[in-house]
Amino acid sequence: MAFFKPLDYWAWAAREDVVSIDSYPDPSDPASGMRAAMVGDLTRSLGRGRPWILMEQTTNRVNWRPVNVPKPPGLMRLWSYQAVARGADGVMFFQWRQSRAGAEKHHSAMVPHGPLSSSPTWHDVVKLGRELGGLDPVLGSRVSADVAILLDWESWWALELPSKPSNRVVQVEQLEAYYRPLFEANVTVDFAHPEADLSGYKLVVAPSLYLVSDAAAANLDRFVSQGGRLVMGFFSGIVDPFDHIRLGGYPAPFAQLLGLHVVDFLPLAVGSSAKVHFADGASAQGDVWTEQLRLEGAESLASYSGGVLDGQPAVTRHKHGEGTAYYVSTQLDGPALARLLGHLCSAEGIEPVKVPAGVEVVTRTAPGSSIQFLLNHRDVAVDVPVEDAGVNLVDGAAVHRGLLRLPPHGVAVVREGW
Amino acid sequence: MAFFKPLDYWAWAAREDVVSIDSYPDPSDPASGMRAAMVGDLTRSLGRGRPWILMEQTTNRVNWRPVNVPKPPGLMRLWSYQAVARGADGVMFFQWRQSRAGAEKHHSAMVPHGPLSSSPTWHDVVKLGRELGGLDPVLGSRVSADVAILLDWESWWALELPSKPSNRVVQVEQLEAYYRPLFEANVTVDFAHPEADLSGYKLVVAPSLYLVSDAAAANLDRFVSQGGRLVMGFFSGIVDPFDHIRLGGYPAPFAQLLGLHVVDFLPLAVGSSAKVHFADGASAQGDVWTEQLRLEGAESLASYSGGVLDGQPAVTRHKHGEGTAYYVSTQLDGPALARLLGHLCSAEGIEPVKVPAGVEVVTRTAPGSSIQFLLNHRDVAVDVPVEDAGVNLVDGAAVHRGLLRLPPHGVAVVREGW
Amino acid sequence: MAFFKPLDYWAWAAREDVVSIDSYPDPSDPASGMRAAMVGDLTRSLGRGRPWILMEQTTNRVNWRPVNVPKPPGLMRLWSYQAVARGADGVMFFQWRQSRAGAEKHHSAMVPHGPLSSSPTWHDVVKLGRELGGLDPVLGSRVSADVAILLDWESWWALELPSKPSNRVVQVEQLEAYYRPLFEANVTVDFAHPEADLSGYKLVVAPSLYLVSDAAAANLDRFVSQGGRLVMGFFSGIVDPFDHIRLGGYPAPFAQLLGLHVVDFLPLAVGSSAKVHFADGASAQGDVWTEQLRLEGAESLASYSGGVLDGQPAVTRHKHGEGTAYYVSTQLDGPALARLLGHLCSAEGIEPVKVPAGVEVVTRTAPGSSIQFLLNHRDVAVDVPVEDAGVNLVDGAAVHRGLLRLPPHGVAVVREGW
Repeated sequence: MAFFKPLDYWAWAAREDVVSIDSYPDPSDPASGMRAAMVGDLTRSLGRGRPWILMEQTTNRVNWRPVNVPKPPGLMRLWSYQAVARGADGVMFFQWRQSRAGAEKHHSAMVPHGPLSSSPTWHDVVKLGRELGGLDPVLGSRVSADVAILLDWESWWALELPSKPSNRVVQVEQLEAYYRPLFEANVTVDFAHPEADLSGYKLVVAPSLYLVSDAAAANLDRFVSQGGRLVMGFFSGIVDPFDHIRLGGYPAPFAQLLGLHVVDFLPLAVGSSAKVHFADGASAQGDVWTEQLRLEGAESLASYSGGVLDGQPAVTRHKHGEGTAYYVSTQLDGPALARLLGHLCSAEGIEPVKVPAGVEVVTRTAPGSSIQFLLNHRDVAVDVPVEDAGVNLVDGAAVHRGLLRLPPHGVAVVREGW
Repeated sequence: MAFFKPLDYWAWAAREDVVSIDSYPDPSDPASGMRAAMVGDLTRSLGRGRPWILMEQTTNRVNWRPVNVPKPPGLMRLWSYQAVARGADGVMFFQWRQSRAGAEKHHSAMVPHGPLSSSPTWHDVVKLGRELGGLDPVLGSRVSADVAILLDWESWWALELPSKPSNRVVQVEQLEAYYRPLFEANVTVDFAHPEADLSGYKLVVAPSLYLVSDAAAANLDRFVSQGGRLVMGFFSGIVDPFDHIRLGGYPAPFAQLLGLHVVDFLPLAVGSSAKVHFADGASAQGDVWTEQLRLEGAESLASYSGGVLDGQPAVTRHKHGEGTAYYVSTQLDGPALARLLGHLCSAEGIEPVKVPAGVEVVTRTAPGSSIQFLLNHRDVAVDVPVEDAGVNLVDGAAVHRGLLRLPPHGVAVVREGW
Repeated sequence: MAFFKPLDYWAWAAREDVVSIDSYPDPSDPASGMRAAMVGDLTRSLGRGRPWILMEQTTNRVNWRPVNVPKPPGLMRLWSYQAVARGADGVMFFQWRQSRAGAEKHHSAMVPHGPLSSSPTWHDVVKLGRELGGLDPVLGSRVSADVAILLDWESWWALELPSKPSNRVVQVEQLEAYYRPLFEANVTVDFAHPEADLSGYKLVVAPSLYLVSDAAAANLDRFVSQGGRLVMGFFSGIVDPFDHIRLGGYPAPFAQLLGLHVVDFLPLAVGSSAKVHFADGASAQGDVWTEQLRLEGAESLASYSGGVLDGQPAVTRHKHGEGTAYYVSTQLDGPALARLLGHLCSAEGIEPVKVPAGVEVVTRTAPGSSIQFLLNHRDVAVDVPVEDAGVNLVDGAAVHRGLLRLPPHGVAVVREGW
């Protein structure tokens, strides 16, 4: 369970020799592909980049949701390759033989209750095992990211305690809001603790980092001062590790970094939203939360339109040392956030991989070797442009520069330049 | 409480001298008439056909629902006659005098809180009592059925334990799905335990009989082998009485009988449905559940259309010994199930009683006597065709061949041929 | 907490030297202005008309709702003046300094976490304090009402016990149904215990007074006999203080007073409603509840239309001694109830104050002095007609006969005739 609130995985990860995870995305939820990628990125980040093991997934159905929809043909294989793409060196299943009795007897397995000969699941598992044998060149290679999203369990716990301005600010939803546009642009992301060494990243995102230690605050300041680009979401920097308010005007530890004060929180009632206008003319919608800001050095990139905040800044930018800090005071709609993050990535030379929508691209590298995973999340075939010729490790076929056709839920693992 | 999950009524019924039931259908629910009929049929079946007693019903309102809508004029009388029609020899009420204090003081009674003279309820009760005095010829007569629906509390309990492919498979809903079209066609139904002697029935229906004993499996096989017609619903024959999977391919104990294996369960997410096309061109909708079948002798009567099961069988038929076994792998919509059951009844010479919709017809017989109950569930008058002249025991009036007018919620109890 | 079910405030009020209340209306609920007025009227009534203290309100946001929307500009000031208008001589806040730690650190305060200079809340509190200094002439003055709504905690508790004909009859909703049209017509209302001295009132309203003592029944009879006008809502007078049914036909203690018996309760299912036609041609909708009435002296003002009660009386009037008693057997829609209460007020010479919708008018009087509060609940400016010249105590400005402009959420406190 990757984003498992009760356990601070950073605290455990420091002592772990082998990093593994289970992953059970719901096949009936269209966001599952994105969420499974997030799980992979978090697991890799917990292991400080070392290869990890997908220790548990189901071959087909689980048994603990109200309705346990099976994986359609190809999805088990796709999600298995996705784990490898995001850094796994092993792919395993729960359970080997489907149990005859007990609570998990309706949880799918590699060996089903019925005859093997007619079981598509058995056939798919055997085929996957055979294919993975061709992926030896992937072993030990690494995934590198220019972008980090900050996650601190202590802050998560504090954020979701009761008696807040709004109980609609949910940590994982805020993480997903920023992760999704980066995933869709095929910009690979690490997760990082706010006190971690961030010097290797070009862009750092802090979604609703409510609780912040002195060390973390100094760390973020240093990251920006030394040339980094930081995007901070609303309701960040409010309390210290004792859950005491950091006095002096919100967000006290980041006011200088962001060049602003938050005068007041204006959470939005269910069913309400705010209009936001960007300086370049684009308009957007704000949900969940708004804030009244007083700029003290920052410039406004977008303003609220209508309501009591009419004309006041909603999204800001502030030069700080060698770097730049952005503040987003509402939950911007997906396209607006995608556009904003797209600009910042471009400014840092992080270019999205141009492939058809629904195709996920991740690269694993080793000294002298680059292996690109192409994963088709759609249930129709797509043609994916390939820049460098190579070989598809899945079937040993040569891959030429040009268009590569991926079948529905199809995958290719292209080892470049041999 | 007739379909009361916590108690296995078959186990109690074997030792009961007098069979009785309480029945409190909700007057605000249009399915209540059908459900009250089900209650009567189950009660009669528990007593192995002997007359039973409706020991408790309310004259008007209950007091334990969130909103306790009263029975509109005539409905208490209609439902009382319905109980008699389905085998009751006694009709009683809770409570005699409406209590002045305590939790049930707002539960209606025969004697109300207020003056008798102005109480429609009191008047209706007195009138009903007077009418029932004319029904002596009904006493001791029996209701016979050609169709049985199987119900096993052990299977019900196992089916609704957690950790299933879907928690949307609910035993009583599956019973109702098959009961309703038979009720609407005025085909009288018994309920039976799967190990009971089924030799007297022409058609047996097994809706989601998840748990099955060896004896029950052999019993159903024998029933079909010897010429019976069986309809089995999805997710049947999966576990034994110890809730252990019956290995060898679902549904192991019925695979030979049905001429098929279930390769996989594909439960449907809330809001999803499946298209089903019958071989004769009719189309239908499948809900809740679908299955991938591999036919081994059975022929397909209907196939799935679209989705991952496109073109694969949904409803099958299999000759087995002298009889025929049908398998329905999804929850067919009402009209489709009505059509299917209608064909099977016709094939067995069980003809629906042709009366206007909303009119319930049940016959009680004694040696040399046949008494037909005509019950109008609608709140408008209807004309019901009468084949054989007789006398209406309710008011002593002669009934002639031709059309008999039933007032809104009206009843007639026609003793034929005297 | 004004309408706080667990505590019988009448029992406490008799021994209280200083009457105070807290009031935390939800700024996101359009009914909050009306509800805050109800709170003020109840608090004043508990103190038998003596000035009271608004001991707690928030300057801006609370922290205990799921979403805590802030008060828009002007609303804190408006609701503060509303308390004074309805009898408060003091207005206070929780909390002085916003706490740094603990459960209430996100509850607004007079002194915020951040710098005072940029805090609109701090500025508004200081401005209000300065303004209130000009309201010395208001101190000790009284609010008088011609109308009383009956509220008895014992009856409330009994009404909302389970096992009722319907759980949709909720005491506070019934109070609000009658309070709202009087509030909107600017007819000031007291709340009263059913055993209180009612001789000072012209109109008394008893919404669903389910439990009634002998003394209360005699008190209401005496009030009408001696010339008062009473409106009684459905499901009144059903039980005694021991929660025993008052036998003899509902509502036994009021049957003579109302000139009718309730033959039966017919609660409405969720989603159902009843049509009601008034004798003057107007039509209305009944919700929640209907009743079958048998008139014994009363005349019908409105009848049910359609359904099983078609043509039967819904609203009645009965002369009793020198007065008149009305009975309303369903929950009439707002406009219909407003019309009915408007007629009764007019008949008693209680005229609504004619101001634009959304403007609240209340008068406090002292010997030789009359002070009118004009409160604009809308977020646009309105022009309010002023009959008598005077001075606006808020800013010392002269007020002339004619139109007085109130800004959005604006207030005026006009001391007349000096």
